[in-house]
Amino acid sequence: MTDFATTKAMFHLPEGVIYLDGNSLGPLPKAASARVQKTLSDEWGEMLITGWNKAGWMDLPARLGDRVGKLIGAPKGSVVLGDTLSIKVYQALASALALRPERRVILSDTGNFPSDLYMAQGLARTLGPDYVLKTVAPDDVAAHLNNEVAVLMLTQVDYRTGALHDMDALTRQAHGVGALTVWDLAHSAGALPVDVAGCRADFAVGCTYKYLNSGPGGPAFIYVAPEHSQAATPALSGWLGHDAPFDFELNYRPAPGIDRMRVGTPAILQMAALDAALDVWDHADIADVRARSIHLCDLFVRAVESTCPQLQLASPRDGTKRGSQVSFRFKHGYACMQALIARGVIGDFRAPDLMRFGFTPLYIGEAEVTDAARILSEILETRGWDRPEFHARAKVT
Amino acid sequence: MTDFATTKAMFHLPEGVIYLDGNSLGPLPKAASARVQKTLSDEWGEMLITGWNKAGWMDLPARLGDRVGKLIGAPKGSVVLGDTLSIKVYQALASALALRPERRVILSDTGNFPSDLYMAQGLARTLGPDYVLKTVAPDDVAAHLNNEVAVLMLTQVDYRTGALHDMDALTRQAHGVGALTVWDLAHSAGALPVDVAGCRADFAVGCTYKYLNSGPGGPAFIYVAPEHSQAATPALSGWLGHDAPFDFELNYRPAPGIDRMRVGTPAILQMAALDAALDVWDHADIADVRARSIHLCDLFVRAVESTCPQLQLASPRDGTKRGSQVSFRFKHGYACMQALIARGVIGDFRAPDLMRFGFTPLYIGEAEVTDAARILSEILETRGWDRPEFHARAKVT
Repeated sequence: MTDFATTKAMFHLPEGVIYLDGNSLGPLPKAASARVQKTLSDEWGEMLITGWNKAGWMDLPARLGDRVGKLIGAPKGSVVLGDTLSIKVYQALASALALRPERRVILSDTGNFPSDLYMAQGLARTLGPDYVLKTVAPDDVAAHLNNEVAVLMLTQVDYRTGALHDMDALTRQAHGVGALTVWDLAHSAGALPVDVAGCRADFAVGCTYKYLNSGPGGPAFIYVAPEHSQAATPALSGWLGHDAPFDFELNYRPAPGIDRMRVGTPAILQMAALDAALDVWDHADIADVRARSIHLCDLFVRAVESTCPQLQLASPRDGTKRGSQVSFRFKHGYACMQALIARGVIGDFRAPDLMRFGFTPLYIGEAEVTDAARILSEILETRGWDRPEFHARAKVT
Repeated sequence: MTDFATTKAMFHLPEGVIYLDGNSLGPLPKAASARVQKTLSDEWGEMLITGWNKAGWMDLPARLGDRVGKLIGAPKGSVVLGDTLSIKVYQALASALALRPERRVILSDTGNFPSDLYMAQGLARTLGPDYVLKTVAPDDVAAHLNNEVAVLMLTQVDYRTGALHDMDALTRQAHGVGALTVWDLAHSAGALPVDVAGCRADFAVGCTYKYLNSGPGGPAFIYVAPEHSQAATPALSGWLGHDAPFDFELNYRPAPGIDRMRVGTPAILQMAALDAALDVWDHADIADVRARSIHLCDLFVRAVESTCPQLQLASPRDGTKRGSQVSFRFKHGYACMQALIARGVIGDFRAPDLMRFGFTPLYIGEAEVTDAARILSEILETRGWDRPEFHARAKVT
């Protein structure tokens, strides 16, 4: 049984803050700070170029891949870290399309994170005028799966509402019409149990700065099902995905297996932070985290609905049908979120009217949930959001 | 006049080490360590998600772009940081090819860094069977420039020999036949004066972990000539290159100008390190650095040639014709470099027989050069390289 007091003690949480935005950027794990400092001083500082071997930098993307793989049901050697999620989407999608050369349709939904759609648009344009990205409403995905679809590309958890796709069922349906799947696990990895191997996902990608707490700009990951790993030809064929990068051959020959999804020189400071951040999973079981997250989300929904009638639940009411977040619609959501932040309750806002709250049991408990709901109701009761400084739009993330 | 004692004091250099591999990974600037720690503790730790605005993370890629831009002759707002060099090569090349839609040939040379060639191969494969990467000997590039060439893609400084392409003349010749240019400045930025605007380069890319000392996996940069910035359509169309990333539209609309070359969430720890590392350029003039680097390289060549007859110079003898490195051919180069490293002289080896030494006046002086040459001659005299442990191949970088 996971002891959430132990996991909470592993994070630095600022005084007076209730942090409900770990679904956007996880907080600082205390070990990450020490580990990055060690990488700077003892590794880069003292070993210089020899750190690539002596400090194990070169193997870090694969070693971290196995650590992240455990959290998403991926076998050893099937996940590698690197780049950003957008780049990994491009890689996965390009490889998947190349495995269905006779088809031209990428199917996705309007609940997908826009960058995934943008990357697909860029890839389709690069591949040629025959390729199309077809984007349908989340509930209509299954109905649009037919034998013209090369790849079904979805984010498992809707970034706005938290609504969860049935990854197992949709993957089966996609395979039934001969399509492959690319699953974006940005809001899944570390938030809920995922079993990429069990549901026979073909490709999966995700980021590590949300529920895996690797810090701003932490590396992304990519999973390639072992059955595809020898056939997947990388479109982004960088030297570290070469079979023999240090032979400096003039022609690209992909490395066997998942290593071919590496591209350029890995971002070692970010990877060191991730490595330390993953230590929390030595003390946490993802099934416990999921159960507790549903409980906390339910608690928040009940508290908000009983005291804040102005807000409408935008997330599925059934906890098993959503990720680790709940969202509410409110006409003055932007200003209200600014007022909340000014009171120390950090969630975020998504246009046009969504107030989004993430609940991560690793460092959030019942007390924070009820306090946050109480502060929200106070703001609504006093129209505390109706101050000019809360209406000024800044870039938000 | 640059005071190199001042710049040297800005770096942490391990005791007993003569570091001649800054062309592969620059040493740790003392300020980088403090700056990254601050980013961890005061920014990520305390500001959490609000760091994207409050700590200026979101603007860091552009702000760093202007700082790097100054070192390569790029006007303000024409350079942005992010991703890895391989990714930036792909971006630049894809954009350049799209600007020459009627042509199909990418011209490069065998002295280019293999990852650039690999990325071009991957892009050509993605674009379709008509596209070809033509790779000729470095001296034959000009002769192969004709009106079939869409893009001339070269690395200014040959990573093995240090031989320098005439960027100005080749760009002019390329334009003369209607081709565009993509220049890789990996071994140029921070090593020698570059004037991308003056020589009318169309695109330029580079990394920051060599002569700009940003640390292992530091971000890459991309320059787009202002005349192309509105026409260059990104193939890697990520959300942070969108005109309004936080409007979360379903369709990609490129940001005006260089921002469209942004892709995903920037690696903030690596960028913080770069930001601090660039402070050394407040105390160093690139023209002084270049003059001093030529002097140090010449000194090394003379010392080695007078005491190590077994070694053959592989770099241009004329200092103005090479970058900030010299290479020597030696049959037992690999083992000899291992023996040198064991004696504290760190250079590197490039197959099949090249011993490579980089000279960075920011932290290397005459004393280090003559000491390194003396130790090399001692190893050669005593066949000090001929020990089994120096022959075992590890992955080297």
